[in-house]
This record gives sequence, C-alpha cells and structure tokens, in this order.
Amino acid sequence: MTKAAFYQGNRQFSFGHAEPVPPGAGEAQIRVAYGGICGTDLHIYHGNMDRRVSVPQVIGHEISGTVSALGDGVEGFQLGDAVAVMPLDTDRCLERDADYSHICEHLKFMGIDTPGGFQSYWTVPAYTLHRLPPALPLVYGALVEPLAVACHDVRMGQVRAGETIAILGGGPIGTLIGMVSQSIGAQVIVSEINPYRLEFARSLGMDAVNPRETDLVSYVMDKTAGRGVDVVFEVTGSAAGAEMMTKLPRIRGRIVIVGIATAPAPVDLFRCFWRELNLQGARVYEHQDFDRAIELASGGKLALDRIITQVRPVEQLQEAIEMLEKGGDVMKILIEVDPA
Amino acid sequence: MTKAAFYQGNRQFSFGHAEPVPPGAGEAQIRVAYGGICGTDLHIYHGNMDRRVSVPQVIGHEISGTVSALGDGVEGFQLGDAVAVMPLDTDRCLERDADYSHICEHLKFMGIDTPGGFQSYWTVPAYTLHRLPPALPLVYGALVEPLAVACHDVRMGQVRAGETIAILGGGPIGTLIGMVSQSIGAQVIVSEINPYRLEFARSLGMDAVNPRETDLVSYVMDKTAGRGVDVVFEVTGSAAGAEMMTKLPRIRGRIVIVGIATAPAPVDLFRCFWRELNLQGARVYEHQDFDRAIELASGGKLALDRIITQVRPVEQLQEAIEMLEKGGDVMKILIEVDPA
Repeated sequence: MTKAAFYQGNRQFSFGHAEPVPPGAGEAQIRVAYGGICGTDLHIYHGNMDRRVSVPQVIGHEISGTVSALGDGVEGFQLGDAVAVMPLDTDRCLERDADYSHICEHLKFMGIDTPGGFQSYWTVPAYTLHRLPPALPLVYGALVEPLAVACHDVRMGQVRAGETIAILGGGPIGTLIGMVSQSIGAQVIVSEINPYRLEFARSLGMDAVNPRETDLVSYVMDKTAGRGVDVVFEVTGSAAGAEMMTKLPRIRGRIVIVGIATAPAPVDLFRCFWRELNLQGARVYEHQDFDRAIELASGGKLALDRIITQVRPVEQLQEAIEMLEKGGDVMKILIEVDPA
Repeated sequence: MTKAAFYQGNRQFSFGHAEPVPPGAGEAQIRVAYGGICGTDLHIYHGNMDRRVSVPQVIGHEISGTVSALGDGVEGFQLGDAVAVMPLDTDRCLERDADYSHICEHLKFMGIDTPGGFQSYWTVPAYTLHRLPPALPLVYGALVEPLAVACHDVRMGQVRAGETIAILGGGPIGTLIGMVSQSIGAQVIVSEINPYRLEFARSLGMDAVNPRETDLVSYVMDKTAGRGVDVVFEVTGSAAGAEMMTKLPRIRGRIVIVGIATAPAPVDLFRCFWRELNLQGARVYEHQDFDRAIELASGGKLALDRIITQVRPVEQLQEAIEMLEKGGDVMKILIEVDPA
C-alpha cells in the first residue's frame, strides 16, 4: 500500500495514499526511502508559502530512494539504483539563464511548486537524480540535499584551508556549513542562542558563542589577533545578523547571505566600502554541489549520524513538524517513508 | 617663489608659501603642475574630516608634476620625469595586509592624513610615483588619480565587453566609471538628477535617466529585455541608492559600492539571496589601476578634455571649492599650481 503525507493548509497535514505516477519521457520514478524536514517545510506549515503550494499537496524535497521505474529516453540509471534528488525543475528556464538555471526566474522547486517526496513513489525529471554509492546508507542519502546547500554556500564563500570563518546561526544548515568548512581545513566560530545547538557545535570541534552572553565582535577579534574572520555566513535572516555580519570580516573578507531575510535590514555599506568587503548571495545548489555533497557524505569523515536527531514514520509528519517548531533538542528530523 | 594653499578649518583656505621639504631616503620631491579637486576635498572643507586633517594643512591628492629632487636610494626616476602620484602612504601597513595595502588599517592617505599637493613642491615616498608618458599633457596627468579610482571600480566589478551596466550617480567618478566601461565595450546607463550631468553623460554616448522623472527600474528592464543589468555601481552613498541598487541587476549580477554611505541603510538582502547577487566594496586603487589609468589616458580615446570643466590658479582654491559646492555646470575643477 502506498503512503503519502499531504499539506492541507492551515498548519495541517493528513496521511493517506497517492497513486504512483508512471514516468513520462525523460522522467524517473523513485521509491522514496527517507526525506528530511527542511526549514522551508516549516515555512509551508506556517502558511507563508500558500501562494506557491496547491493544497492538498505532498511536500518534502530532501529525498533519498531507489529507482523504481524509468521513462523513455532516460540513460545512465537502472532500476534499483540508490539516488538522491536535486529538487530543481529547470524545464522552463530561459536559455539566457543557462549558467545559473538553479536560480532562474522560471524555476520550479519540487516539493513546493510541484509535488514533493513524502510519498512512496515520486516521479521526477531524470536530470534531477544523483546516484548514491552503494556503501552510503539511504538514511544518510536524505542528508545530501541540505549538505549540498552547505557545499554551495562554502563554495560561493570560497573558503580555503587555514581560514577562519564565522557562522551566524547554528541550525542544520549553519552546522553543515561548519562541517563542510572543517573538512576543507577551516576554523569555525558559530554564533547561536539555542543552548542545545551551542553544545552541538562545540561537540563537533567548533567554537560556539552565545552573542547574548558574550560580545561576539570581541570574541572574534581575540580569536583572529584583531584581524577579523575570512568569511562570515549569515544564516539567521535577521536584522541582528545583517548588523553583525559586517563587523566580523577582515579587510577584503567575504560575507555569504544564506538566511532568508523577511524584510530589508540596515547594512553598514560604509564598512563594505572601507574594507572592500564582498557580499555574496547563495541559494540552493548546482549539480557540482550535489556531487561534492555525495563525495563528502560517502567519505565517512562528516558526523552525519549526529545531525539526524530523530527519525519518524511518514504517518507522523504532523508531530515531527510540531516538534521541529518547538525547537529544543532537535537538529535534523528525517521522515521514513518506504525504506524497503 | 613657492606657492601653497592651506586648509585652515571652518571652510577657510589661505594662500601662502610652503618651504620645500628635501626628500629623505626613498623619497622624491615633485614640482606640482596640476591638482584636481576631489569630493573628499569638499568633505574636508565641510569639516567632516577635521579629525584627520591637522590645520593649517596643505591638501590635494590628484596631482601631476615633474620630479624636482630625489632622495637616497630611489631608482627608476630622473629629475624632470613627468609623474602622477598614487597618494597612499603604506609605510605602516602590517605584513598580513600586504595583499591589500591600499586599504590597510594603518594607511595614511596623503593630502588628508599627511600634507597634500596643492603646493609648488611636494615630497612623497618614491613608491607612490607613476611615470607619465611624454605625450600625455600634465593637465591630463592630474586626472590619472580619479581615473584610477574608476579603473579600480570597474575591475572590481569585473565589467566585460558586451555587458550593460548602470551607474547610480553621474558626478566625476560615476562619469569616469562610465567612460572606462565604454572603453571595455560595455553599454552604460547613468542615473542622475542634475540636468547638466545628465546631458554630459548623454553627450558621451551613455543612456542617462533622471530617476525623479523616469521609473528607473522599468527603464533598465526595457533596455535589457527584462533581464536586468550585469553590474550596478552605487556612487551616491545615499539610502535611495542602497534601495535601488538591488532592483537593477540580473540574476547573479554584481553591485559595486563606490559611494561613501553616511549611515547604515536598508538593503534588500532577500533579493541578494534569491538572485545570488554579489556586492563588492571598492575603495581607492592599487598600482595596477594607476598603470591602467595612465594607459587609458594616454590612449587618446577617453574624452578627458570634457571632464575638466574649469582650471583655476592655486590662489583661487577657496573660490574653486565654493563653485564645486554650488554644483551646477561643473564636473572636474583643476587647480593650476606650478606647471613650469
């Protein structure tokens, strides 16, 4: 019997069944094993994305699974292949945006603009599939998508070995940015107010500071001999983050905008000018970031087991989302759909 | 008889004489021919930089002249060589800032933090000299410094042939940015409210728009088939510029912060994130920008004669500054010191 969790609007999910969609030409159908709950899913739950989500709709876009059917003309995959899905439907992108189709104007984000993966069988464009190595458990495969976000952010921030970075916001994405940066050989300072997440970052070997208790600017300057960090990742989307982010980088340092700001916030443009700071927006990922994420996840050096703090069956999506909303001792919650 | 113009504080300049300073080891003394008046000189006049300027002090930092004396150990120059001065005293810069000594923390800006060039003889570190080709009149040599600012800005903005750029603010620096970008093969749109400067930009083959009369966003989108420009140069330092600058670039477009913002201003960081915009601060110049500026000035393709709207003797610095402050039909005013 197939399973599916539908967003019904108004903070409600229902559990039911969805008829598998046979893959058309260029499409693949996957049997979904695991799916992570993303901050974006929380935004959907809060009704912030009702303009884009057509209820009732299956959501979920951090998906691992195995290929269960292939449409005409799909090459390079076989039934049973373990895959992660890069949930960007770029079919409608204009040719002129080809170099950045991941953020093109006509992008459809799967699991928001189109049905997602919290269901037993998910039919997707075959170009969204990335093969997972046999040695990588599917449960970690569901982390490839958020890990690819972090790989993209770190790549856009041009983090290099020996550099020191500061991350404003130690949730799952901030933490993964820290882990990816550590894997490159960077020192990581995390600013976070949640005590659980502070301790979490420390347990991964990062410096972690509660900016409500410690003067973050002084802390960073002490750590960097007064120079400032090489890169700041702004992952809070808050006005406080926008104010802080320009205070921490060294001269010619970089700032990566990862957090989703809800309103324009004052930014110290004089300091951007004076110190020739570079500020780079970074959204989702490109295929190379998925490749890198799979390579990292397979390498066995990232503490991915630590990131997954809960696994819940798809029937309990509602409870899982509510747990995530409450915060507390939670990092990444995975939804188990049909892991075979 | 030597000449010199001194800033006395409180919007006052006095004319008098300054004893030539013999060059020490590693220094050169130049006989000053021409010097441009910069927006920064206006800031000094307004008292905004009294913390850095020790009155009475000779100001002026856009200088051309000829080598009149050489200190011990200076190689590569001979008496009589025509030169422009890159007015950055980097003697105190830390080794760790060597890659960006032009903006290092201990930089002394000559003509602000130390005496400037509105005097017959100016003694400077020899490493600040850039030789001017014999064919380049010294009067244009005084434009090398602001032209180097524009070269730096355009380089930091990575402007390429075939691109379309928008410049917010059509004063001397904005106009020079437009001219340098045109020389690369870019299309230029200037936003400016001063009618004289609008017409000036148009006469140079740039599109020029008064944003108080025309909807700049619509204009830019029409010009770029709805895509947006490749690069925006924010040269106003205003909150209006900070608001406008994120509306104009294409996806993955660039913004260069050239204007000196007087206060943090709201910036649409969501749009920076969503479109992966890149924002780069750009301050003064590096030696390669001076080299490029001299090359461009010597090439004969830039309408440098048009940029110089007035030339006044150094005795009239006060009147020249007041003329600049009034605005109106003025672009760059040169001060004639001792052109031999």
